[in-house]
Amino acid sequence: MKQTPLRSGMGRSTPDRILVQGRDLCRDLLGKISLSDMAWLEITGREPTPGESKVFDALLVVLVEHGMTPMAIATRLTYLGAPESLQAAVAAGLCGMGTTFAGTAEGAAKLVQDALRGTPGDADLDAMARDIVAERFGRKATIPGIGHPLHKPIDPRTPVLFALAEEHGIAGRHVALMRALSRAAEAASGKSLPVNATGAIGAVASDMGLDWRLCRGLAVIGRAVGLVGHIAEEIRHPMAREIWLRVEDETASNAAGEESGDA
Amino acid sequence: MKQTPLRSGMGRSTPDRILVQGRDLCRDLLGKISLSDMAWLEITGREPTPGESKVFDALLVVLVEHGMTPMAIATRLTYLGAPESLQAAVAAGLCGMGTTFAGTAEGAAKLVQDALRGTPGDADLDAMARDIVAERFGRKATIPGIGHPLHKPIDPRTPVLFALAEEHGIAGRHVALMRALSRAAEAASGKSLPVNATGAIGAVASDMGLDWRLCRGLAVIGRAVGLVGHIAEEIRHPMAREIWLRVEDETASNAAGEESGDA
Amino acid sequence: MKQTPLRSGMGRSTPDRILVQGRDLCRDLLGKISLSDMAWLEITGREPTPGESKVFDALLVVLVEHGMTPMAIATRLTYLGAPESLQAAVAAGLCGMGTTFAGTAEGAAKLVQDALRGTPGDADLDAMARDIVAERFGRKATIPGIGHPLHKPIDPRTPVLFALAEEHGIAGRHVALMRALSRAAEAASGKSLPVNATGAIGAVASDMGLDWRLCRGLAVIGRAVGLVGHIAEEIRHPMAREIWLRVEDETASNAAGEESGDA
Amino acid sequence: MKQTPLRSGMGRSTPDRILVQGRDLCRDLLGKISLSDMAWLEITGREPTPGESKVFDALLVVLVEHGMTPMAIATRLTYLGAPESLQAAVAAGLCGMGTTFAGTAEGAAKLVQDALRGTPGDADLDAMARDIVAERFGRKATIPGIGHPLHKPIDPRTPVLFALAEEHGIAGRHVALMRALSRAAEAASGKSLPVNATGAIGAVASDMGLDWRLCRGLAVIGRAVGLVGHIAEEIRHPMAREIWLRVEDETASNAAGEESGDA
Repeated sequence: MKQTPLRSGMGRSTPDRILVQGRDLCRDLLGKISLSDMAWLEITGREPTPGESKVFDALLVVLVEHGMTPMAIATRLTYLGAPESLQAAVAAGLCGMGTTFAGTAEGAAKLVQDALRGTPGDADLDAMARDIVAERFGRKATIPGIGHPLHKPIDPRTPVLFALAEEHGIAGRHVALMRALSRAAEAASGKSLPVNATGAIGAVASDMGLDWRLCRGLAVIGRAVGLVGHIAEEIRHPMAREIWLRVEDETASNAAGEESGDA
Repeated sequence: MKQTPLRSGMGRSTPDRILVQGRDLCRDLLGKISLSDMAWLEITGREPTPGESKVFDALLVVLVEHGMTPMAIATRLTYLGAPESLQAAVAAGLCGMGTTFAGTAEGAAKLVQDALRGTPGDADLDAMARDIVAERFGRKATIPGIGHPLHKPIDPRTPVLFALAEEHGIAGRHVALMRALSRAAEAASGKSLPVNATGAIGAVASDMGLDWRLCRGLAVIGRAVGLVGHIAEEIRHPMAREIWLRVEDETASNAAGEESGDA
Repeated sequence: MKQTPLRSGMGRSTPDRILVQGRDLCRDLLGKISLSDMAWLEITGREPTPGESKVFDALLVVLVEHGMTPMAIATRLTYLGAPESLQAAVAAGLCGMGTTFAGTAEGAAKLVQDALRGTPGDADLDAMARDIVAERFGRKATIPGIGHPLHKPIDPRTPVLFALAEEHGIAGRHVALMRALSRAAEAASGKSLPVNATGAIGAVASDMGLDWRLCRGLAVIGRAVGLVGHIAEEIRHPMAREIWLRVEDETASNAAGEESGDA
Repeated sequence: MKQTPLRSGMGRSTPDRILVQGRDLCRDLLGKISLSDMAWLEITGREPTPGESKVFDALLVVLVEHGMTPMAIATRLTYLGAPESLQAAVAAGLCGMGTTFAGTAEGAAKLVQDALRGTPGDADLDAMARDIVAERFGRKATIPGIGHPLHKPIDPRTPVLFALAEEHGIAGRHVALMRALSRAAEAASGKSLPVNATGAIGAVASDMGLDWRLCRGLAVIGRAVGLVGHIAEEIRHPMAREIWLRVEDETASNAAGEESGDA
């Protein structure tokens, strides 16, 4: 078999040094770089500008915590079963970050990146948005990044993220198109369909030049932080056992009732 | 079944607000709090002091990247198989963060927290360290947080973390005991047994008041960042397929050779 | 909040009994039912017929082992890092069972189930297949379940699975359509595009009445068995550390060479 | 770096054949070997005897289903978030199979294997058991495989597994020691402390010659089957969303009450 050399610029170690992205971790980074700047460096291979730093930090912070999500509950239940493997409890929670919830940042970014790729700078974004909405609604598809079951008429996270992106000169055509999509979707449906947080993340990240395939990664980083937080609370004030026993008890009672003809 | 009420202070949502640890995410946190301060808030329920902020950021940054670790390779191989589930690729990598590698921050923190719990402030840490080392070496056990297969005579990350902890007034008896353990272990064994990075994390986190059961969580947060970085590089410059095919090819060739009597 | 009762027929326990699908585990199942019949019972809620039993067993066995796959390597690397969490090592390997590899059983089953739903029993399957192939090839999409990078001109697993399904009276229109898809795809492309193992699994499972959303589950069950097998070999003859060190060494050498201008 | 050759006997493929453990999958195994015999072959490298086949099947079947466990709930919640990644939902559930629940098969097997290693065939197992119990109870440790919170005075699965092991000539000193441990623990504590299902699995697997490090793997295989079953029911009769919304609603109500001074 012909071999292709394995190459990576992520990092390497010698007995007295750890190199990360070509920088000396201990001399150049540790104590000098924040976690979110480190995340940017890891993903893009370069340090962020001050504006990128500020906006990217917000993109990572926004999804850290959203209360007792299915992911948080799954992490707590897993920690109950395997407290010796905190990492596996976080992993279990992350596994649920798919198309139903926060994973939609990816779909939103793909939508606007695909739509704008190769188009001229003065393309009519409202017309583009109307076409996308018509095509999607025509086949009864939803528009990723648009609409929220709870946060209406607006998702309160979106204006903050968009304002930060504007303030730091990052908001561009991807953000503009995402806003146009919301307007077009609302016009076509007559319903409240705001840009939601994952739509805002996808659009701002796109204007920062990030590949759509990585946008779900921003949500994953933020939520990993939040899931460790849930384990911290679970250690202090456990609730996983109570949730489990309630579900077990209720399903067992209902099943027993049906078997004995009570139901 | 008697039910216990489910209580959580992590967060909750109303149509127009998202509350995180009792704060309004959009008004009080987003754009104002860094990711690592958010992590501290999630874990402890309060904002960090400036010194805690600085030191905690370093604790999270230090394990983000260590080159092509088994975890990074596992994440890349998983991404190859399921590129539509970036979150599961990160989860797969995190699952390997157990007792062999970075998970040892937990063991190191437990060791020093157990040893110091309830002891007077002027306890003789060197004597305590000698006793621990004698007991552990006596049953051929290793000392978590001490020694590194590559980084000798010192792990270069440790002095930076300890210096930051000193500078910001955080280093206390847990850090002192960890250092004493290294000295005692070196004296007893005649080998180079420096405090390694996970030992430093465990000791500093202990002096910050964090429960030992959470120390692995700091490593998990940092490494989640790094694993997203590895996926970013894998998208630009794939290597997972090459690693897989080499392993498959070599094992298949060797097996075929043995079956035909060549081996 | 209005609550909907939680109901489940999976199982429940009393102090002296464990009920599974309404049967007494210890009296009726244990020692009397095979693992694959138990899998069928769990998925469908009833015992299999003798023919279903035979065919379903083969569907589960066929994907157990395929050598050093990316999943097997990921499981071994994870076990290296967390040998105390065998379950997490299997979980890590399973996470890679997505759209690239064995997860395609799901796509294949969806394709034939969607195509046949509501059609008359004498529908022209060859015409249907030609239409599907034309539509897919027209948008440069592949056909799930068709083609294999290594196993050419046929995937040797497919005729065995199809023969078993015929022998036991299970093969029906879904199998017939899958075969027609292969013929149509080969005619349209001029290439060898056999029904592969996941295509065969998807088609046979569809003729057994299984929802397409569960077909990936059959692959998951089989592969979980295989991944435990890989851990067994890894315990006896470790290779994960060698794979890791080779990758780390080669990437570090290449990176160092580039930094010093050798590359 | 000096390389060690990578060797594996698990399997390999050529264009027209798939070899598994040196056998031709399509000619020798598929349609002829059951899933549990395949599991035995994968783990041990040889086909089971008829007695081993029967007993091993029971060891895998016994933990498939135990109702709405924390693992089953975690799998369902994960599937709710990422229905496109069934494999990740099973993986999330498996991650919880640690020291609290079924993972204890490993600890039980280690206990009896460590105790019996190198002892003469006529060693006094009752005395051995009394010593182990005294040592463990002395440091307030539990005895893995002994006692069950619900199944009292006996775990109904244990006598069935032990009877099967006796009937097929497999029960030996490991089973005898496990029984002796239960008697000794009951005598020392005055409480009902039966051998539980994981204790029985660990003891029987030990008498079959399996390494204690693999015993958790038997539970993992069985439970992977059960978790796919839970997803099948979740597709037909969803309950994950209801569980999530109840938890979210109750915690949010309680938090809001506390903030407004109602609590």
